[in-house]
Amino acid sequence: MKFRITPVNGGVCVVDGIFASGVKAGFKKDDFDVGFIRSEKEMDIVYLFTTNRFQAAPIKYVKRKNIKKTNFILANSKNANALTGEEGIKDIEELTEYLKEKVEVKNPLMSSTGVIGVRLDKEKIKKAIDKFNFSEKNSYAFSRAIMTTDSFPKEVAFEVEGEFGKFKIGGVAKGAGMINPAMATMLCFITTDADIKDDMREILKEINEITFNAISVDGDTSTNDSVFLMTTREGDYDKEAFREALYQVMLKLALDIVRDGEGATKSVAFVVSGAKNKEEAKKAAKALTNSLLVKTALFGEDPNWGRFASTVGASGVECYEDKLKIAIENVVLYDRGKILMTKEVEKKAHEIMKRDSFKIYIDLGVGEGNFTAYGCDLSYEYVKINAEYRT
Amino acid sequence: MKFRITPVNGGVCVVDGIFASGVKAGFKKDDFDVGFIRSEKEMDIVYLFTTNRFQAAPIKYVKRKNIKKTNFILANSKNANALTGEEGIKDIEELTEYLKEKVEVKNPLMSSTGVIGVRLDKEKIKKAIDKFNFSEKNSYAFSRAIMTTDSFPKEVAFEVEGEFGKFKIGGVAKGAGMINPAMATMLCFITTDADIKDDMREILKEINEITFNAISVDGDTSTNDSVFLMTTREGDYDKEAFREALYQVMLKLALDIVRDGEGATKSVAFVVSGAKNKEEAKKAAKALTNSLLVKTALFGEDPNWGRFASTVGASGVECYEDKLKIAIENVVLYDRGKILMTKEVEKKAHEIMKRDSFKIYIDLGVGEGNFTAYGCDLSYEYVKINAEYRT
Repeated sequence: MKFRITPVNGGVCVVDGIFASGVKAGFKKDDFDVGFIRSEKEMDIVYLFTTNRFQAAPIKYVKRKNIKKTNFILANSKNANALTGEEGIKDIEELTEYLKEKVEVKNPLMSSTGVIGVRLDKEKIKKAIDKFNFSEKNSYAFSRAIMTTDSFPKEVAFEVEGEFGKFKIGGVAKGAGMINPAMATMLCFITTDADIKDDMREILKEINEITFNAISVDGDTSTNDSVFLMTTREGDYDKEAFREALYQVMLKLALDIVRDGEGATKSVAFVVSGAKNKEEAKKAAKALTNSLLVKTALFGEDPNWGRFASTVGASGVECYEDKLKIAIENVVLYDRGKILMTKEVEKKAHEIMKRDSFKIYIDLGVGEGNFTAYGCDLSYEYVKINAEYRT
Repeated sequence: MKFRITPVNGGVCVVDGIFASGVKAGFKKDDFDVGFIRSEKEMDIVYLFTTNRFQAAPIKYVKRKNIKKTNFILANSKNANALTGEEGIKDIEELTEYLKEKVEVKNPLMSSTGVIGVRLDKEKIKKAIDKFNFSEKNSYAFSRAIMTTDSFPKEVAFEVEGEFGKFKIGGVAKGAGMINPAMATMLCFITTDADIKDDMREILKEINEITFNAISVDGDTSTNDSVFLMTTREGDYDKEAFREALYQVMLKLALDIVRDGEGATKSVAFVVSGAKNKEEAKKAAKALTNSLLVKTALFGEDPNWGRFASTVGASGVECYEDKLKIAIENVVLYDRGKILMTKEVEKKAHEIMKRDSFKIYIDLGVGEGNFTAYGCDLSYEYVKINAEYRT
């Protein structure tokens, strides 16, 4: 290994000159709900946004202004500022104007998550801005401020060192419900000082495909999901080291989101191999993470491999009964036409399924395509959370 | 109206010379689980099968033998005979051979529903065959014999009369879990004596698109779903009358299936209009019936129109914030950019959502495409049923 990746504390504040925190604006009963990330130096920023046609106002705002450099992100939870039309964008303009009176901002942007179709309460957010301590390095408070139905905050940071020199990278995310195929009610902020030479956006996109785009909680795609990558360019850079570190940051946050899926009791990796190609492997793996019948079987700790097979068969990928192989960890349940599930095998598989986390292997035996998708089970709690969400 | 459609009793036995019944083979604790449909006269038969790549053995059997005329269908529940390879097909051959010793059969076929990946218990089914009274006209017992997690049997029959003469048509279906986009763990048997002149399969396909293919319980597609249309050709025929009667038979059974969706407490029609074209209308309507966030909002009787909008936006169809219109029955929640949900409006919408059945209107305002899809809510009970299915 030409480089070493070391976990450190600090989240998005791991990078020198980057500050963050959260305050209580009163949207939540008694927790942080409005926060900021601020950089002394202007940062280069790239982003990936939801594929939902109804992109939220903060996303439209960034795209319209074509923001490529910024030193400030204002974030809030409990209100998505989505489906709010031109007024939603004007609200952002008013708030960023207000920010200018308090601190030096260049191209500030906003990021929101919460209920769709309700105007922002600007007065409350302004009062929150009044409370900000812009010199605070409190990534934890920021990560709490963006939580909605999340049960724990999601933070990570690394120092990366090698022959090339060193850089730092940190991230914060929020997730829970609505996590799916093309990102979700999911926000992710990644800061680094790596002096990225290659196309920042391409690297982010590539790693996003195998991390955030490989997870699913409920198959819905929100109006707000966004991933931001920002750099102060004060550190060193090595492409291989950066790709690996970014992968580790995003995979950690993505798996935290799955683990914290609304009402989820366990997270499961669906390792699909032998598909016709990568696209088909992904299609099958994602179908498995999204199937209600698979998700409820996981909740019931029931090695009902027929449901896995049926879901793969319904996904539209090339597959054959006499080529398919299904295993839960090292316990093979079905092997190219042979049903292996005796009482004993079933018991073994059931024991593995009691764990918090395990792998299900699906080999299609058709080609060379591989993809791993990460999902969770569907519990009574999911229904409860989502049936009562607004009440 | 040039014809009159009158509801009558009898289910699939409404047609003269057609017999059906069910017996207790011991697969269920104390209910019918193996049944038959028999015709004195050989019937022309057409069928539509699941798009799942892993079609069950009974489907492979019919396709392999290319059965176009039959006088006998043997059906069972609790075992899908799917993912059972060549042995699953041999089991059917053995059972149909056994039938020949008991009654005169021509090209008998089989239809199964239940757990995937377990061989049929042929001895139990043979004992059931021994118990059959082949002259019984008991469509109700047959409809019970094919039930799995269904909570009530699903039957319908009509007499159709007009200037052209008259014919009869009857149907039986089973549904519950796994009901989705391309049919589902759903079996449907329709008998008629109409002397259909046009392409039977084309008519069945056309009506299927707007009935069984327009319903969803959980978005999964099973290995077994099948719709059979059989005719003795003893009656008269009029194309318009037959299409209408077939539509009414299939819509009734399809809506019964939605109403009986696993754990469902209400059924909802999503009426999508103004889409770019019919395909996009269907895509949006089906996305709404399949979204977990929409389904849990229905269960919570929460007029959270933002979730409806977000789901439409995520479905990939052409849509715009300032053209979209959303209403629950006659209560408009969002009108082309205007958020209309005041406390009073919300209360009205909430009252409507307490009903067993209601309509949600989504107008995309883009083109002329319309489609109505039928779905249900997602309750704790769904999770319970599916987590405990095999245990």
